[in-house]
Amino acid sequence: DAVVQLGEQPKGRGVGLDVQLISEISINNSTFLERNFTDSERSYCSSAPSSQASYAGRWAAKEAVIKAVSSAAQEVVFDKGAAAPLKDIEIVREEGKAPVVVFHGEAKEAVERAGVKEVKVTISHSGAYAVAMAQAN
Amino acid sequence: DAVVQLGEQPKGRGVGLDVQLISEISINNSTFLERNFTDSERSYCSSAPSSQASYAGRWAAKEAVIKAVSSAAQEVVFDKGAAAPLKDIEIVREEGKAPVVVFHGEAKEAVERAGVKEVKVTISHSGAYAVAMAQAN
Amino acid sequence: DAVVQLGEQPKGRGVGLDVQLISEISINNSTFLERNFTDSERSYCSSAPSSQASYAGRWAAKEAVIKAVSSAAQEVVFDKGAAAPLKDIEIVREEGKAPVVVFHGEAKEAVERAGVKEVKVTISHSGAYAVAMAQAN
Repeated sequence: DAVVQLGEQPKGRGVGLDVQLISEISINNSTFLERNFTDSERSYCSSAPSSQASYAGRWAAKEAVIKAVSSAAQEVVFDKGAAAPLKDIEIVREEGKAPVVVFHGEAKEAVERAGVKEVKVTISHSGAYAVAMAQAN
Repeated sequence: DAVVQLGEQPKGRGVGLDVQLISEISINNSTFLERNFTDSERSYCSSAPSSQASYAGRWAAKEAVIKAVSSAAQEVVFDKGAAAPLKDIEIVREEGKAPVVVFHGEAKEAVERAGVKEVKVTISHSGAYAVAMAQAN
Repeated sequence: DAVVQLGEQPKGRGVGLDVQLISEISINNSTFLERNFTDSERSYCSSAPSSQASYAGRWAAKEAVIKAVSSAAQEVVFDKGAAAPLKDIEIVREEGKAPVVVFHGEAKEAVERAGVKEVKVTISHSGAYAVAMAQAN
């Protein structure tokens, strides 16, 4: 029974998907929000029509980005447990544009080490769930 | 604190994801259906085992395609608000094949302007939700 | 009304997405589990914090892989109805790594025939749902 482990390919490409029950995001916990979201993200989410859905979408996007970069690198990156600097993976929205991922600090270094040149991200929410997907190239 | 905006890359590649609560799709509103789905799509969805789930999947697919092309173009395309010609983004199913995206009219022009050569799409539904994902290359 | 069927492109790239209501996975049906999951997968899922969610995630991943390879091949592969050898599409997790797809037997042959060189997969679950996405290159 021959086996080909197709996942063992050159580095540089990866995908990440995340689903998040919106009600689980603790939007009344300011410590949680300040630790995981930048000032700009908190400003954006707080003024969104559904603030909790907006935070959940961004949370899912950050998780999807970590998975996509880890998939490209073929090892888990940013893996610092409770100290993971999700704030260093910023989701930027400009009016009339698709969301863009901006990396700061150690996250930026980890992405460069992984040989990833570009990360695309997409977010959606409906009903009780937010989902996000990222692709690293 | 150095920043690299990895999203600012050459045009041409993008991803789009969409989730849709199936119960929100107004399958009894014929104006809505005729405006957003082609004759062929309505025929397919109406005869599906779960018509509403099938319409929701196609709706999510059209939204995912718009996001993927916008992500590739690095600007929102097809952005005409309530007048967005979702009907011009057709999801075609042939027996024994993966779904295919066919663009018509202004949607076709917008995709060509964005430099996108290919859009792949995938759809799923389970329980109360439909999801779809598109990749533009 | 000119039409461009952008999906008719060279073979080799495809995407697959799947959502699965966790409660639908029959974890008390050992025949079902043994037919669709390898010994290693059953061992992993049985010891997971939420066994049913873990099985649902793997089920979604296998379905997403089939869709991604079918999307790349531009025809449905592995299409054997009730006899589809989902067990031949194995999702392998190593500590500290992203999940990897390993193909066995007829699934391996089908993937090679489709001209697919690499399949990346990503899995998530939250609340009542598991989702997975695969990309074939």
